[in-house]
Amino acid sequence: MTAEAAEARAEPGLYRWERRTEWPMVTLSVLFLALYAWNVLQPDMPDSLNRAISTGMWVTWVAFAIDYVVKFALARERGRFFVRHLFDLAVLVLPLLRQLRVLRVVMVLLMLNRKSQGQVRGRVVLYVSGAVALLGFSAALAVLEVERRAPDSTIKTFGDAVWWTMTTITTVGYGDYSPVTDRGKFIAAGLMIAGIAMLGVVTGSIASWFVDRFGGIERQLEQTSSDSRRLDDDSEALRAEIGVLREEIASLRQELTASKAETRGHD
Amino acid sequence: MTAEAAEARAEPGLYRWERRTEWPMVTLSVLFLALYAWNVLQPDMPDSLNRAISTGMWVTWVAFAIDYVVKFALARERGRFFVRHLFDLAVLVLPLLRQLRVLRVVMVLLMLNRKSQGQVRGRVVLYVSGAVALLGFSAALAVLEVERRAPDSTIKTFGDAVWWTMTTITTVGYGDYSPVTDRGKFIAAGLMIAGIAMLGVVTGSIASWFVDRFGGIERQLEQTSSDSRRLDDDSEALRAEIGVLREEIASLRQELTASKAETRGHD
Amino acid sequence: MTAEAAEARAEPGLYRWERRTEWPMVTLSVLFLALYAWNVLQPDMPDSLNRAISTGMWVTWVAFAIDYVVKFALARERGRFFVRHLFDLAVLVLPLLRQLRVLRVVMVLLMLNRKSQGQVRGRVVLYVSGAVALLGFSAALAVLEVERRAPDSTIKTFGDAVWWTMTTITTVGYGDYSPVTDRGKFIAAGLMIAGIAMLGVVTGSIASWFVDRFGGIERQLEQTSSDSRRLDDDSEALRAEIGVLREEIASLRQELTASKAETRGHD
Amino acid sequence: MTAEAAEARAEPGLYRWERRTEWPMVTLSVLFLALYAWNVLQPDMPDSLNRAISTGMWVTWVAFAIDYVVKFALARERGRFFVRHLFDLAVLVLPLLRQLRVLRVVMVLLMLNRKSQGQVRGRVVLYVSGAVALLGFSAALAVLEVERRAPDSTIKTFGDAVWWTMTTITTVGYGDYSPVTDRGKFIAAGLMIAGIAMLGVVTGSIASWFVDRFGGIERQLEQTSSDSRRLDDDSEALRAEIGVLREEIASLRQELTASKAETRGHD
Repeated sequence: MTAEAAEARAEPGLYRWERRTEWPMVTLSVLFLALYAWNVLQPDMPDSLNRAISTGMWVTWVAFAIDYVVKFALARERGRFFVRHLFDLAVLVLPLLRQLRVLRVVMVLLMLNRKSQGQVRGRVVLYVSGAVALLGFSAALAVLEVERRAPDSTIKTFGDAVWWTMTTITTVGYGDYSPVTDRGKFIAAGLMIAGIAMLGVVTGSIASWFVDRFGGIERQLEQTSSDSRRLDDDSEALRAEIGVLREEIASLRQELTASKAETRGHD
Repeated sequence: MTAEAAEARAEPGLYRWERRTEWPMVTLSVLFLALYAWNVLQPDMPDSLNRAISTGMWVTWVAFAIDYVVKFALARERGRFFVRHLFDLAVLVLPLLRQLRVLRVVMVLLMLNRKSQGQVRGRVVLYVSGAVALLGFSAALAVLEVERRAPDSTIKTFGDAVWWTMTTITTVGYGDYSPVTDRGKFIAAGLMIAGIAMLGVVTGSIASWFVDRFGGIERQLEQTSSDSRRLDDDSEALRAEIGVLREEIASLRQELTASKAETRGHD
Repeated sequence: MTAEAAEARAEPGLYRWERRTEWPMVTLSVLFLALYAWNVLQPDMPDSLNRAISTGMWVTWVAFAIDYVVKFALARERGRFFVRHLFDLAVLVLPLLRQLRVLRVVMVLLMLNRKSQGQVRGRVVLYVSGAVALLGFSAALAVLEVERRAPDSTIKTFGDAVWWTMTTITTVGYGDYSPVTDRGKFIAAGLMIAGIAMLGVVTGSIASWFVDRFGGIERQLEQTSSDSRRLDDDSEALRAEIGVLREEIASLRQELTASKAETRGHD
Repeated sequence: MTAEAAEARAEPGLYRWERRTEWPMVTLSVLFLALYAWNVLQPDMPDSLNRAISTGMWVTWVAFAIDYVVKFALARERGRFFVRHLFDLAVLVLPLLRQLRVLRVVMVLLMLNRKSQGQVRGRVVLYVSGAVALLGFSAALAVLEVERRAPDSTIKTFGDAVWWTMTTITTVGYGDYSPVTDRGKFIAAGLMIAGIAMLGVVTGSIASWFVDRFGGIERQLEQTSSDSRRLDDDSEALRAEIGVLREEIASLRQELTASKAETRGHD
């Protein structure tokens, strides 16, 4: 929230644009992924259809390019913008390598990520699971496209690709299926890193859950008890002393009254 | 505790039913697993026995179905119930695919899980270890049943299946044994996810133990010292000032006595 | 510390015995491991030497048995002792299976573990690393002894066994070497679990280090706030009492003025 | 910071030398790595160039040796220095084994590590990622040099080596490529340990991020500062009120003295 507010103050134009184009962009990314999946999963499609799909993918690409340019134009601190959006730029330029186009779906994740800021733990875990699933699906598609026609490759069907993705992202790595082409290995490397990250998020969230649930309580309890004990002793002592003070003043008063009475009496 | 209490207040009927049917359900799940194990581990059993076992398994299935329907009828917020029990429903409907029936044992875990809420860390870890063991056993059975007769499969005996389960759930993945059928791979995927979760719980619990034991101590030490220092300074100052007050009042009293004596004396 | 002290109070005899026999036991365990290693690593030794080594191993076994019996005799709550030392008992009885004898070294770890209670994080990490190294070494020995003569096994030399241990305990699992005998697989399963535990400790300690280093400050602030709230209550009480003091002194003053006026008046 | 300051106080000469030689050392390490990479990646280079590169590598080695000796001479507590720099010594002496020379780059990491002390989480993660990348690159070079000419080895090109490094450091371990020579396996073991450490840091940082973010701490940050401020105000107020008390009593005393004087006077 605060982070978003700060951004809104620092880059009002950029922020307004991003909020307005958010959902169109998500839609475009999903559309792109759908087209890409279709393209990969039905290799022997009529040329007309094939051409239509390619066109669709390029349209999404152009849309993303325009979005990037507009953002850059709206940005106040362009240097900062450029550095912070290097990944977006890479996603725009790299797609000349066909298999890397799927990286574009990561844009969706980045957007959702900004949304999930300041949410409860469950939401973050959910978001990451979704991101991993999406990445896995994209990786499976990309690897299938790359490996399918490679000589002595083991990944021939989408089933093989999904199975390989599972064994890789969980770092199980049987090795019954593994990419043999350079591009395939490049995609695999990305997938492994995603796997590590996923492991980290799963473990991290469970760990923090443990810390909150069990550590927190125990620690606070003993801490509090020791503190309050110390505090009680202290205030006890202080109250005692003040009590003594009150008695002294009380007796002091009595004597005053007495002396007053005497003074009156001896007249 | 509190979570359970809240649930009891929100859904009294549902809660009462669940508490009453808890142990019968656990028993049924265990029975189902036993029957399934028997069925898988002794493939060449006489038809009569085979039929008896199948009947037993279907009885447990019906019991679970009735349980679900009753719960749904008792629920106040049915939409919420439906969403939160989608998994139970899946477990009820999916078993038409034979190998997925074992998913039903997960119901036991879910029940125990509710029990283990608000327990100390050790209990949760124990529970998870049990859950993993149970899942592993079920997965070994299911994979064996699927792979046993598949051509060029490597998992032929229960020993193979258990060994494969170990290598998969620990994400070691030698690849000397791995499923070749689609169903087997589907089961394996579930097992890998369970493995990741187990890793997360083990690591998470150790991490929180570290945080409590060492972070805790260090933090408490410095915390306490700084606290007591602050407290000492405070009470020191207060005591000092109160001490001065006492002296002043004491001398004040002496003078009063003196003046009284004089007053008396000069009569 | 406190835990140890509590144990000392609960089981004085047992505690005294354990403290006295600690180092002899460690020595015996190391000796046993050394003998076992020698036995495995030099398979074609003269019978006389072989017999000598076996004798030595059995002597250590007897020593451990006596230790267990004495402890059991010294224990006050024997049921509790039995439950808490089931592992020691298993280690004593299982060795009839040759390859499991190495489990005995774990006893050393358990002892060191008790020592490392209440130590700083670094010590625990060090201890765990040592434990993992020791377990790995034992597992390599045991697996080598089991697999060496098995037909179509891949683990033929100690080098193979160590390499296999590394790939297994880190959950890398290339699969270029893997056990083929049931006993070997049993040992491997233990090693995998040790690997998971090691992963957990490494990650856990790093996580807690992060939490302390970077989360520490925030937590202290939080702590302080709760403290200061408690302090506020205290000072409230103090202020009230001092308020009373002021009123008393104020009235005291009025009376003084009055008495003064009278004294002046009656002249 | 404080740790660095303490070191500066304990070992002023050493500290000054280290600060002065820091960047030259980093430069030398990078230079060495570059030369080594060139040497490995272009095996069939003209002898003259080969000799030049070897010379360069030995120059760096000599520089490191001199650095170590000077440090040792400057150290006050030499025993402590020796123990704490055993690794540096090993890196200096081991290089006689060619493939271990790359360990020298770890020196860079150690230096950067000292820098990254007391930095925010992000910096530590960044540093570790860099360290892992550097280690991976070095390991790929070393393994390639070792395995390239080994009979029936699978790692023949730098691409193979990098791919193998990825699968190893992420603990995926397909096993399609794995070292067959003892030296290669030794390097692999180091890489696996690095992989475990990386996993630990990734998970640990995410876990602590979760703990901080969702442990319900930030909320209290502002309120805490205000609390502690109020705490100070409070004790101020208390002191003020007690001060007033003292004044009242002082004046009370004066009046008493006055009345006494009068009483005496009117006799």
